[in-house]
Amino acid sequence: MPNKDVQSERDTRKITIDRVGVKNIRYPIVVEDRQNVQQQTVADIALYVDLPEDERGTHMSRFLEVLNEYHKEDIIANLEQFMIDLRQRLGSDTAFAVIDFPYFIEKQAPVSLSRSLLSYQCHFQASLSEVFRLVIGVKVPITTLCPCSKEISENGAHSQRSYVNIQVTLKDFVWLEELIELVEASASCEIYSLLKRSDEKFVTEKAYDNPRFAEDIVREITLKLRQDERITSFRVETENLESIHDHNAYAGVWSENFWEIKD
Amino acid sequence: MPNKDVQSERDTRKITIDRVGVKNIRYPIVVEDRQNVQQQTVADIALYVDLPEDERGTHMSRFLEVLNEYHKEDIIANLEQFMIDLRQRLGSDTAFAVIDFPYFIEKQAPVSLSRSLLSYQCHFQASLSEVFRLVIGVKVPITTLCPCSKEISENGAHSQRSYVNIQVTLKDFVWLEELIELVEASASCEIYSLLKRSDEKFVTEKAYDNPRFAEDIVREITLKLRQDERITSFRVETENLESIHDHNAYAGVWSENFWEIKD
Amino acid sequence: MPNKDVQSERDTRKITIDRVGVKNIRYPIVVEDRQNVQQQTVADIALYVDLPEDERGTHMSRFLEVLNEYHKEDIIANLEQFMIDLRQRLGSDTAFAVIDFPYFIEKQAPVSLSRSLLSYQCHFQASLSEVFRLVIGVKVPITTLCPCSKEISENGAHSQRSYVNIQVTLKDFVWLEELIELVEASASCEIYSLLKRSDEKFVTEKAYDNPRFAEDIVREITLKLRQDERITSFRVETENLESIHDHNAYAGVWSENFWEIKD
Amino acid sequence: MPNKDVQSERDTRKITIDRVGVKNIRYPIVVEDRQNVQQQTVADIALYVDLPEDERGTHMSRFLEVLNEYHKEDIIANLEQFMIDLRQRLGSDTAFAVIDFPYFIEKQAPVSLSRSLLSYQCHFQASLSEVFRLVIGVKVPITTLCPCSKEISENGAHSQRSYVNIQVTLKDFVWLEELIELVEASASCEIYSLLKRSDEKFVTEKAYDNPRFAEDIVREITLKLRQDERITSFRVETENLESIHDHNAYAGVWSENFWEIKD
Repeated sequence: MPNKDVQSERDTRKITIDRVGVKNIRYPIVVEDRQNVQQQTVADIALYVDLPEDERGTHMSRFLEVLNEYHKEDIIANLEQFMIDLRQRLGSDTAFAVIDFPYFIEKQAPVSLSRSLLSYQCHFQASLSEVFRLVIGVKVPITTLCPCSKEISENGAHSQRSYVNIQVTLKDFVWLEELIELVEASASCEIYSLLKRSDEKFVTEKAYDNPRFAEDIVREITLKLRQDERITSFRVETENLESIHDHNAYAGVWSENFWEIKD
Repeated sequence: MPNKDVQSERDTRKITIDRVGVKNIRYPIVVEDRQNVQQQTVADIALYVDLPEDERGTHMSRFLEVLNEYHKEDIIANLEQFMIDLRQRLGSDTAFAVIDFPYFIEKQAPVSLSRSLLSYQCHFQASLSEVFRLVIGVKVPITTLCPCSKEISENGAHSQRSYVNIQVTLKDFVWLEELIELVEASASCEIYSLLKRSDEKFVTEKAYDNPRFAEDIVREITLKLRQDERITSFRVETENLESIHDHNAYAGVWSENFWEIKD
Repeated sequence: MPNKDVQSERDTRKITIDRVGVKNIRYPIVVEDRQNVQQQTVADIALYVDLPEDERGTHMSRFLEVLNEYHKEDIIANLEQFMIDLRQRLGSDTAFAVIDFPYFIEKQAPVSLSRSLLSYQCHFQASLSEVFRLVIGVKVPITTLCPCSKEISENGAHSQRSYVNIQVTLKDFVWLEELIELVEASASCEIYSLLKRSDEKFVTEKAYDNPRFAEDIVREITLKLRQDERITSFRVETENLESIHDHNAYAGVWSENFWEIKD
Repeated sequence: MPNKDVQSERDTRKITIDRVGVKNIRYPIVVEDRQNVQQQTVADIALYVDLPEDERGTHMSRFLEVLNEYHKEDIIANLEQFMIDLRQRLGSDTAFAVIDFPYFIEKQAPVSLSRSLLSYQCHFQASLSEVFRLVIGVKVPITTLCPCSKEISENGAHSQRSYVNIQVTLKDFVWLEELIELVEASASCEIYSLLKRSDEKFVTEKAYDNPRFAEDIVREITLKLRQDERITSFRVETENLESIHDHNAYAGVWSENFWEIKD
């Protein structure tokens, strides 16, 4: 009896497992791209299901089996079907997926119009129980310049790199690019990979003319998210890598109905 | 008017900020130690408050002011008072603190009785609104040995290092050491820093005699937590650094009433 | 005179800067693939030059300019030319590039022959001074099983996931796949993403039959590297995530002539 | 013969292992403190020896044995003796130790004179072969303000947090505090944990009046290190978390005779 199926044994402890699965799987994926139709990138993936109280173990290999059956073009494009397959193959009631990946956008510098790529770290969370739910998230690097520092100083004002983390649920399609633009428009200045001297002058002066506290950033974004009828719930946070401290400043707002996978 | 208080300006956007504050502060602290009365360690601290809709900014420096007024001996020992001070000084309704630190326990190897220190990463979350709430967490490294691998193989069974993350709320005092022992007793075998040859034989054979799936680990711990009347809610997870894969296996259970700071 | 070129000012401190440049640039690249001709992935890139003692600053934007002029297909395929361009555009004597990326290989499970992708983290270091030098590195996850634990125990033996880091310089072309296979053949057992029950039996038994210390792993690989005439220098290290400890075991060997960028 | 000593077997592959040992050990230590005589902190430790070509394995447990025999007060204070013990117990020719730990200094804000703690990440590397060598390193967070941005912009100039990594070998005693002060004096402005409004005005204006490129920072520090007769070799690097980019700027200088453990 060498291949006894230990996982399928009955469990008598009467404890449902909320989430069981696999983490830290790297996998190539293809995502929709507003400018270039699609782009190829590399994801870090976690996949989970629940486990009923009477089953001893899940079948971990089946998560990988389902993943490897999908073409890399199809996972994000057919995420709901992927979750249905996952749930069915694992024989569970619910399925969860957390998918992180860098997404590249070609930007043009504000004055020289030089083109360069900037990467944005995306964070998708999908769950399937009675309904399919999807949280779309992206982390946007921006420049923030401190209003207090500007106000009280004869010259200059401290600025720093900040990361805005925005997560939304949707009832209609929204491009990642739209979320990113919404965040960048709320910054002291947006960030580019390639800036020539004329551009550096522009972004320095723009940031100086648009001072923002962490609190201002998340409030401006919140206002815009509330006005967008396609967005049904959200969470927005900023973390500023303060240039005058070795700790970070943080501000976060979330809509009351915002839900996400505890991870 | 060089020192105008920009943060105190009125804000008209009518958006309450759920959480605003400072992150990634390293600070020396002293914690209670069952064996040695107290031990000194180094924490990574985040402190937050809420911000009413009519205030433009919080006063970030006050978080540091309150923190630096406390002696390192007093922060954990007087955490509720610390939170009261924080809330009062910031003029807010709620205050939050997240405090991570390594905690050291001297263990004795099972056969040679050799003594060595092992560190456990702790994670405390405190909040003060109408009531004071505290979540105590600790991450415990253990050995897990796969029941399926043992069952189906002629010889041997794959084992790996796993990390169990246990978080609880309490109505009566519980030592960190008790939580750690509870987890270690649910493992295939517990982990030590120093093992001589006689000990290595012991832990190898003990793990082989106690195979555990990730699911078994969290269920055994759940049973024990439910039976402990001092514990009012909990979350328990394990992550196994699978030796036959380059991804991790995960299982998690949480009581329905478990609440924690979204972070 | 708003656009004075501060970087081009004369510096009188008489200090040559060994390395100046940009780090942590994420960029999509295409690499050669033995099975599929080429594969697309995402790199983390650092680019440096030296700076003569009489120049105040380098032109950081030019690193990004050169990078963004190359098509993603061309950076790795034309790395020497890329370095020549970098050095010329920056007006320096030497140029350095450090390029990290995940590389995917489709593997077949040993018994079921199920196919799945496994990712390997690659690490390239290039330098151009009088000559062009390239160090090719890859980190290979493997299973190791402890010979001592097996020898002294009645049953079982502790195993764990280990990471072998191999770096080589070459006089003739070597596929990444060849380096990976060389490492995997020196392990207690190689690692797969997807293993069915019959495969799990196979890898458990194979590891048990092939116990290896960290020291054995690096010696076996060293022997093979010395015998390969295409390889001119090397460094090989393993780090074992010990299943019976919360620290790692390490062993490393490098050929006397091995050189790499200090990073 | 259950306890056969597999590690002590003869090895016939004729390959000396350059470095073998243990990594990622957390351990409480005590270090000298200029102001308070001594301070307690938590270290991350790696310990290695070489392994002669005719021995199959080292005895990993002995590293932990030696470590756990030392009182936490004694490891840094008696580092050379610790290394002698390590080498002797392992029966090797050379021993290496890499010890990382946060070190806290109480600083006073420049105007309000408010006191607060700031942590500095230290990095010690010790080796013992024919001679005992010690590299002392510390990472210092500072503010940098861009000279080019200041020069070309009507108002303001972008600033950011930067980390200066300084490593030195010594022939006479130097306080960590001296190295830190040397770095901070070369910055656009030094960093504090707690700054009140009057202080924020001061540091903003000071940074604006002291613009520094990454290149300027490492050159100024190099000049000072060369003039200090107690310092026999050094490496100095800065990494600027650019506020206008999502990548970092880097500059590094090292003296020709600088040597460190490859890690």
